[in-house]
Amino acid sequence: MLKVKVPASTANMGPGFDSFGMALNLYNEFQIKETDKDIIFLENGEPSSIPLNENLIYNSMIKAFQKHKYKFKGLYINVTKADVPLSRGLGSSATCIAAGIKAANHIMGNIMPKQEILNLATEIEGHPDNVVAALEGGFDVSLVENNQVLYSKITPPEELVFAALIPNFKMSTLSGRKVLPDKYDRKDCVFNISRAALLISVFYNKDFEKLRTCFQDKIHQPYRGESIKNLNSIFETAKRFGSLGEFISGSGSTLMTVIHKDNIDFLENMKNYLKTMEVSWEIKLLKPDCNGTEITVCQ
Amino acid sequence: MLKVKVPASTANMGPGFDSFGMALNLYNEFQIKETDKDIIFLENGEPSSIPLNENLIYNSMIKAFQKHKYKFKGLYINVTKADVPLSRGLGSSATCIAAGIKAANHIMGNIMPKQEILNLATEIEGHPDNVVAALEGGFDVSLVENNQVLYSKITPPEELVFAALIPNFKMSTLSGRKVLPDKYDRKDCVFNISRAALLISVFYNKDFEKLRTCFQDKIHQPYRGESIKNLNSIFETAKRFGSLGEFISGSGSTLMTVIHKDNIDFLENMKNYLKTMEVSWEIKLLKPDCNGTEITVCQ
Repeated sequence: MLKVKVPASTANMGPGFDSFGMALNLYNEFQIKETDKDIIFLENGEPSSIPLNENLIYNSMIKAFQKHKYKFKGLYINVTKADVPLSRGLGSSATCIAAGIKAANHIMGNIMPKQEILNLATEIEGHPDNVVAALEGGFDVSLVENNQVLYSKITPPEELVFAALIPNFKMSTLSGRKVLPDKYDRKDCVFNISRAALLISVFYNKDFEKLRTCFQDKIHQPYRGESIKNLNSIFETAKRFGSLGEFISGSGSTLMTVIHKDNIDFLENMKNYLKTMEVSWEIKLLKPDCNGTEITVCQ
Repeated sequence: MLKVKVPASTANMGPGFDSFGMALNLYNEFQIKETDKDIIFLENGEPSSIPLNENLIYNSMIKAFQKHKYKFKGLYINVTKADVPLSRGLGSSATCIAAGIKAANHIMGNIMPKQEILNLATEIEGHPDNVVAALEGGFDVSLVENNQVLYSKITPPEELVFAALIPNFKMSTLSGRKVLPDKYDRKDCVFNISRAALLISVFYNKDFEKLRTCFQDKIHQPYRGESIKNLNSIFETAKRFGSLGEFISGSGSTLMTVIHKDNIDFLENMKNYLKTMEVSWEIKLLKPDCNGTEITVCQ
């Protein structure tokens, strides 16, 4: 039996549309093995209600098997931990894709090089940001060049805590893309280019007073933000409680606020504030995950 | 008498349009002092042929003086070293602006804070990339937010040498901007965002095999490159001789090739190749300058 542990991830992070992803210490876990016959898909040991053809773990495994013409007999997939909330911009689909490919590769005898795993995961997801972070951990700048995923990984500063504000409503990445313009003014491109680069530089230089500028964006947040009620008041309040910067996680609905680890009052202050909202919000204090997908063989 | 030494700079560096600037160890030097009367502008001790109202050093000094209502009596400006070629995309105008403001500030008793110097220099130049590098040295990501210049400085890897290929024709930044589109597809924005961020990450991680990707650009080079004859052949040849990446310096006409310091054959190989071109090209092997503008008082 394989045990696969995959981190959540936050993508875009303000200016890094389709380019930035960071793994977080919030995990989904799966037990997966090849069996003699049948396909069994469980959630916490109970039969899953998701139809097999919509099961992203299963579909990702199938894609990996097909690429290598591997004929499996049967499969057992059990989701043992599902801490990453669905459709909230925290990379839950990337956890399924990463787990599926990594498990399939292990079953086939680890025949897929890392590059092939990254490429297949990106092909399934449609963009590299979340899957690279889920697979490799850390903060990753990623892109696709000549159908090959290329990324560079950095370790985010340990002083920072990512306080995820998770609402009780979902947002789909696909519909989140439909609201975006096709074209942008040159000044808006330059706006994002400079801030995306500044973020990497500030992560190294640790001049955190520049962080708020680093998370500004003209490519997606002004459009997606429209669908998140009270976004501006929530960000303003977070700032008042000492948040160093704020952004929409992925395509939402989670809002990410970045705080210094010494800001111990932030959680309580934000909780009290969010209680006053119509929508119910949960806060999770998260740190970057540096390991990415971990696969272990157990009995 | 003030002696002011200002480094050349390369801007844009592929994806970092109006955002990236790096100071280089190629310098202009100026002797400047306030006098009792008259304005004397010399080049190497000889009267300059440039009309005073077109003199960027003088004009920059005047702007600084005017901001602080400083009434000067007379000025002596002598350009003692002019190693930075004019209108070749190596920041010669930024050297004049930096020298003028720094000298004026010194004459006024150093009353301008660093932020004010950066803001005024950027206002005169129109964009922050070259002037920030010329003033502060190193590799700088810069932007303007609420009329304030904000930048983050990193030290480029010492293994890299910047081989500037300087042709005998000029290009103006202003006309270089006119050829650019007003709007860009989202995928082209994302193309530059990811590569700009990747460059900073690769400068830190020193995974130089990714450098060529880092210098790719969809915002300005495809348009400006049209005016530089043989650009593609020159870049292809540089690559063949071991260049790790290539870009147009600023808005041209200089082409920058980035080589590892151990590539000792590059200079001779490229020289021999460039001799075969119609246009005459000079090569200078440059290293980043880390000091920026230096001002000293001498007799």
